[in-house]
Amino acid sequence: MTIKVVAKHYVKPEKVEDYIGLSKELVKETLKEEGCIEYGLYRDSENLLILTMIEEWEDNKCLERHFNSKHFKEIVPLMADCFEKEVEINVYNKMV
Amino acid sequence: MTIKVVAKHYVKPEKVEDYIGLSKELVKETLKEEGCIEYGLYRDSENLLILTMIEEWEDNKCLERHFNSKHFKEIVPLMADCFEKEVEINVYNKMV
Repeated sequence: MTIKVVAKHYVKPEKVEDYIGLSKELVKETLKEEGCIEYGLYRDSENLLILTMIEEWEDNKCLERHFNSKHFKEIVPLMADCFEKEVEINVYNKMV
Repeated sequence: MTIKVVAKHYVKPEKVEDYIGLSKELVKETLKEEGCIEYGLYRDSENLLILTMIEEWEDNKCLERHFNSKHFKEIVPLMADCFEKEVEINVYNKMV
């Protein structure tokens, strides 16, 4: 069974452009990873400061490898200053 | 461009079984709807009381039709008593 990840970010207004730029690079590199089924950045239709990565992975091993990838370790720390509050990350297993 | 919906529910421990049962029916009927690309119930891997519907729709019109469908209007009110707090719903457009 694949797993889904939803990583919700509340981005500072003045940092939206920076965050999207960094995300573009992260998405491009991540989509090349083995076991990555889906990885995209989405924007809330009402609150434009909510930007969420919605992901699907073959299994937990692939997700762990992603967290340890060169691009993840290089790009994600550069995003740290973009957020109003802590990122909400949920890793999900399918029920129904 | 399709839209994604993430509807996160914090379910009361004693209501988990009821909620999953009702969701099964809702998923079964919703997957038959025109414009429904994905509609599934997911459980957080750490907090088993977080149950989230992750959805993808062709467009907003299809999502509106879903909210007005017979099964949605019949089943969703029966879930009202299952939640610890208000459902968090985000409707997302793809950015990257």
